[in-house]
Amino acid sequence: MDYKAWVAKSAKQPLVLETIDLGPLGAEEVEVVVEYCGLCHSDVSVLNNEWGISHYPAILGHEVVGRITAIGSNAKGLSVGQRVGIGWNSESCMYCKQCLSGSQHLCSQAQPTIVGHRGGFASHIRAHWAWTIPLPEKLNFAEAGPLLCGGITVFNPLAMYAKPTDRVGIIGIGGLGHLAVKFAAAYGCDVTAFTSSQSKFEEAKGFGANDVLSSKDSVAIKKLAGRFDLLISTVNVKLDWDAMIGTLAPNGRLHIVGAVLEPIPVSAFSLIMGQRSISGSPTGSPTNIESMLDFAARHNVLPQTEHFPMSKINEAFARLESGQARYRIVLDADF
Amino acid sequence: MDYKAWVAKSAKQPLVLETIDLGPLGAEEVEVVVEYCGLCHSDVSVLNNEWGISHYPAILGHEVVGRITAIGSNAKGLSVGQRVGIGWNSESCMYCKQCLSGSQHLCSQAQPTIVGHRGGFASHIRAHWAWTIPLPEKLNFAEAGPLLCGGITVFNPLAMYAKPTDRVGIIGIGGLGHLAVKFAAAYGCDVTAFTSSQSKFEEAKGFGANDVLSSKDSVAIKKLAGRFDLLISTVNVKLDWDAMIGTLAPNGRLHIVGAVLEPIPVSAFSLIMGQRSISGSPTGSPTNIESMLDFAARHNVLPQTEHFPMSKINEAFARLESGQARYRIVLDADF
Repeated sequence: MDYKAWVAKSAKQPLVLETIDLGPLGAEEVEVVVEYCGLCHSDVSVLNNEWGISHYPAILGHEVVGRITAIGSNAKGLSVGQRVGIGWNSESCMYCKQCLSGSQHLCSQAQPTIVGHRGGFASHIRAHWAWTIPLPEKLNFAEAGPLLCGGITVFNPLAMYAKPTDRVGIIGIGGLGHLAVKFAAAYGCDVTAFTSSQSKFEEAKGFGANDVLSSKDSVAIKKLAGRFDLLISTVNVKLDWDAMIGTLAPNGRLHIVGAVLEPIPVSAFSLIMGQRSISGSPTGSPTNIESMLDFAARHNVLPQTEHFPMSKINEAFARLESGQARYRIVLDADF
Repeated sequence: MDYKAWVAKSAKQPLVLETIDLGPLGAEEVEVVVEYCGLCHSDVSVLNNEWGISHYPAILGHEVVGRITAIGSNAKGLSVGQRVGIGWNSESCMYCKQCLSGSQHLCSQAQPTIVGHRGGFASHIRAHWAWTIPLPEKLNFAEAGPLLCGGITVFNPLAMYAKPTDRVGIIGIGGLGHLAVKFAAAYGCDVTAFTSSQSKFEEAKGFGANDVLSSKDSVAIKKLAGRFDLLISTVNVKLDWDAMIGTLAPNGRLHIVGAVLEPIPVSAFSLIMGQRSISGSPTGSPTNIESMLDFAARHNVLPQTEHFPMSKINEAFARLESGQARYRIVLDADF
């Protein structure tokens, strides 16, 4: 079998097409022929070693849709030919407290698909059977890739914390944020979108936002004091955090999924007086992802995408880095 | 009726005994003859206007135990002679969303007992009937005062977030913290106490802590990475917050009840990767307080106190401000 992949040889360099050797298939592993793979901001962060965790050579891509081509001898519950997705994680230990209690995404040994493991910008990818998630038949699989990372990242806070009667604010309307607006609207919530880009106001309403505000307009934000039950922040830039926390209702929660590097200064009083919380989460467990995919299929929640053939992967990275992508890029495998 | 009270005429001045006029009893009010009143750090903070919210002249004291002497025409569920307690709040609007849904302590109109209202360092105090909480018969009422503010402040996070199987850390072993250790131990949790004072190590174990650590020992704290399901911080000083947050298990929560003035710098990554939360809360609702008092009576959870006659109130304030009080001061009314 001839395996090919787009390889990052070192930080900040263009990807190079190479033939690769995946070695023998592990007993717990599944092999998938890649059909589509979403391009996520964290692929850029790992390519550029922004978090200091990258391993090179790296095969990026962790929003994979494809069909199973081979199954390891101990793999459970899957069959060859089945259409599946693989997201941020591709393995976990399966025996720690987190794994055994259904929070496999919190396993300290969880294996990120693109750090020390070969990702989805390739002809084939392998993953542990538990992290190889069957796609619902009704789901448009050509558009489903970004759900596997971006989608679950914003769906999980809703699943954990939101009720359909809640007022929810989504901060940042990009790859994650536009999915968050769609999911929150499908969840039945009253949705306010915050974006720094005036050009996204109308589109955000199209995704289901009841209101749209500038995330830079501290005066307007302060007028919403006490409004939101849940705020989900998808941005990786500094905000007027005090004003944002001030928009939380009593018992409200600011939930962070955007990897902002600068510490968030939190006033103890603003938490105490309103009995508020600030929290964060990474992606989700295999059953979280399945539940999200089922919900997405039922409510037709899909990302708004731009497709590139995978052979134009370096152009796709440049497009994402330019901030122009509306709203998520999907690469169509063409090996 | 001759009403007397210890009055703060202005910030940072000794309290002065005066005869006061409480005026006619409101229809929703209850009048209580004060038997005991705890002395809380927030009495000191309001006396010294540390939070910029004080009104003078002020009658402080908000951990009141006494007997009902008079009942307003619309007051519900109470009778003259009944032994009751009054804590941080003495009134709320009773018709907002928070009040009607049982979170009266989050009512935006909630009336603090010692800010713009006459508190409990007095012969008598008045409060709304809903905030006048009957004491369980089994409870040692001479020691119960500090439960009404300090007790509910640390009990409520346990009631909201802890399970008896949890590992709980209590940061700061003072008036609040020693009650937190007792409550957490009675709750069935594994309890670790953090204190900056070596002299409290043994006593903390006596209160029920399984382990005691120095809150200043960053090296030892870092060794507890991933241990705690719940940390309750009662301190109002800066800590090594990164190290403390690092001791939280996946899904763990740092809950703040100590009014630390300097913002807490929170790393988004440390919340995201462990799906952690940081939160805060003020005291509790009337039914929260009732539930806490019932639990305290059943498990014999009482503060360790030093009693002063109320006529020595200025000495009692000096003792509290010296940091020597072990662990909560109660003033015995002697008008």
